[in-house]
Amino acid sequence: MIQSVSLHDRIAELAGFNDDPGAGGITREVYTPTYAAALERVAEWMREAGLRTRLDAVGNLYGRREGSDPGAPAVLTGSHVDTTLNAGRYDGVIGVLGAIEALRSLRHMRRPIEVVAWAGEEPRFGTGCVGSRVAAGELMRDDLDRLRDREGVTMAAALREAGFDPDRLGEALIDPESVHALVELHIEQGIVLETGGEQIGVVTAIAAPHDFRLTLRGAATHAGATPMDLRRDALAGAAEAMLVIERLASASPSRTTVATVGVARVRPGAINVVPGEVELDVDVRDSNLQARELVVESIAAAAREIGARRDLEVEVEQIVEDVPVECDQRVVDAVEAACAEIGVTYRTMTSGAYHDAMIVGRRVPVGMIFVPSAGGVSHHPDEYTAPEDIERGVHVLAGTLERLAG
Amino acid sequence: MIQSVSLHDRIAELAGFNDDPGAGGITREVYTPTYAAALERVAEWMREAGLRTRLDAVGNLYGRREGSDPGAPAVLTGSHVDTTLNAGRYDGVIGVLGAIEALRSLRHMRRPIEVVAWAGEEPRFGTGCVGSRVAAGELMRDDLDRLRDREGVTMAAALREAGFDPDRLGEALIDPESVHALVELHIEQGIVLETGGEQIGVVTAIAAPHDFRLTLRGAATHAGATPMDLRRDALAGAAEAMLVIERLASASPSRTTVATVGVARVRPGAINVVPGEVELDVDVRDSNLQARELVVESIAAAAREIGARRDLEVEVEQIVEDVPVECDQRVVDAVEAACAEIGVTYRTMTSGAYHDAMIVGRRVPVGMIFVPSAGGVSHHPDEYTAPEDIERGVHVLAGTLERLAG
Repeated sequence: MIQSVSLHDRIAELAGFNDDPGAGGITREVYTPTYAAALERVAEWMREAGLRTRLDAVGNLYGRREGSDPGAPAVLTGSHVDTTLNAGRYDGVIGVLGAIEALRSLRHMRRPIEVVAWAGEEPRFGTGCVGSRVAAGELMRDDLDRLRDREGVTMAAALREAGFDPDRLGEALIDPESVHALVELHIEQGIVLETGGEQIGVVTAIAAPHDFRLTLRGAATHAGATPMDLRRDALAGAAEAMLVIERLASASPSRTTVATVGVARVRPGAINVVPGEVELDVDVRDSNLQARELVVESIAAAAREIGARRDLEVEVEQIVEDVPVECDQRVVDAVEAACAEIGVTYRTMTSGAYHDAMIVGRRVPVGMIFVPSAGGVSHHPDEYTAPEDIERGVHVLAGTLERLAG
Repeated sequence: MIQSVSLHDRIAELAGFNDDPGAGGITREVYTPTYAAALERVAEWMREAGLRTRLDAVGNLYGRREGSDPGAPAVLTGSHVDTTLNAGRYDGVIGVLGAIEALRSLRHMRRPIEVVAWAGEEPRFGTGCVGSRVAAGELMRDDLDRLRDREGVTMAAALREAGFDPDRLGEALIDPESVHALVELHIEQGIVLETGGEQIGVVTAIAAPHDFRLTLRGAATHAGATPMDLRRDALAGAAEAMLVIERLASASPSRTTVATVGVARVRPGAINVVPGEVELDVDVRDSNLQARELVVESIAAAAREIGARRDLEVEVEQIVEDVPVECDQRVVDAVEAACAEIGVTYRTMTSGAYHDAMIVGRRVPVGMIFVPSAGGVSHHPDEYTAPEDIERGVHVLAGTLERLAG
């Protein structure tokens, strides 16, 4: 049986490792002393659960339980315990503490099982998932001198300060041959489950973003002295582009494309001046790479058409282009079977957010289990998942591990 | 004959009174030592032209030439010599120096003529036209403690520092009975004349702004985890509103309505978060008050409809509501006759920008003369009006004064 009281107590205790308690939420960025203390507490809980712990060269924490066949590739499960600024207490945390809890109820299996807390899933250094990227061989020693946090501290300096040796980074690489599969329990961070009324999301694919900046340039002229038909209003053109972006994503045949304009910079930005330049930061995501790229191309073409019609210069600049990951069918089957066994309602779905499982999933078979997020709120003090939802997720994780490690 | 070389030399000399020459443009804010020195130079030029000068309690500079009928109400003409930050050398300046120049060529008239340089047309203290507002009785002693500049200096403190006594403000009030008419020569600050190819704009009305803030509130949710059909995207709603604003102004039956969204604040403003709140600062102007208010009301109604359809909260907050001014028909007729006499091409037009003449026009009959602005650029180092265009404006001003003061 799952000792659920203990799990919720631990979630609450971990929330106490907080660099900014006055703000109402939790701030625990990777490689800070507060993060190190929280991670050490997690390691103690791992050891109490009979796991052998080790920290790798980038600060990923592993807790291993051997199987009856010690040479067999291991089943990995875990998430992260770092946070963004003033965030919630569930994002990442339930995937690590929930995994330790799941192992308590799990009989001895044939394969080794390793619980992992990846370092730096949240983007302290601009890029997220630094721990899993190092483990997957996607982040190299040289990158650590380039990546900087808001204060200008390089990732290499932060690692050294935290007691790690950046020059031994290669030792953190995982051998895909040694891993049978990875499964990550996580909060949904959306309202698909809440809207549909299902208790569990069985993730079949993890969408990846294609981010770009769309710049429109017209003429910054006097808001009073420039008649409507003589304007080259960059913001009016941007407004048209924003509606096209929404329409193209909504009409995408994949039905899983999302497109967001989260940032709009309007220049000069005075109430009495027609905007001369607007930058839109656009994020397009899909688990279906072809559908995503078709939407990105259609947006660029539509923006150029708007620009030609309105006499605006249009520029498209790439920001980031990640590759989506298909979940492994055996992992998906194991999650579905675990749901069926204990009688929870579930839906198969795409993860729109990215996770460490997306990074590792380029090297080894992966899957994910989602539990509902109240109102879809995340990265915010109001982030909430009900205790019974977390317990259900841990039950399903245990059932999944049993199937994968048997 | 107009001694045009001298006029252009003076414009160049005045441009030397500059608090930020390194920026490339001119910075000469009202009540600064640099402004006071520039104004004293203007007063010298007035006296050289035979005018008797006086500064009123708010710093408006008058230069008076008596008429043959000293008891007759005076004709006023002028503009301002303060600037915004890093501005051009023509805005306001040609209306003051051009008036002094026009008087040189003008025979002795029946009415007194006063050249005026209004204090603080540019909004150092948030509100523009402070000098003419005091003269028109629209700005009172108490307001001077409320109005503050970017550094928090009150207008009362700035006045005192410049050697004026705020408690004597009432002495700056002009008696409408003592003024026959006012005519202001100014750069257009738009591209109506340049586009139409006319040399002079005869202003028949001065539009006034109705400014308001439109706030749309939805839900700030994860850009990856929130499917298109489950979003409450405040920026997508704002984009729809912006296109409606553009369309309603363009379709206004008055044909002189303009509407501008110059400021858009997007929150939280992260590329991976659906915007939860957007503020649009909207400026609607027309010389036709009824048409303007109809557009403002239609925008508010359309925004509410968008909000209802997209499940967004919509709020409309007033910022400022000024009243447009019709130019006096006798002044308009005088300007047209002056144009016809010297054979310049002209068009009657509305001033979309506001000017001191709009403020004074609520008390006395006013008119304005526009000369072309290259590319419509203003409040910018690139502001430019060709010397021959300025000379034509001065000619027309002289002809207008001759008709009004005869």
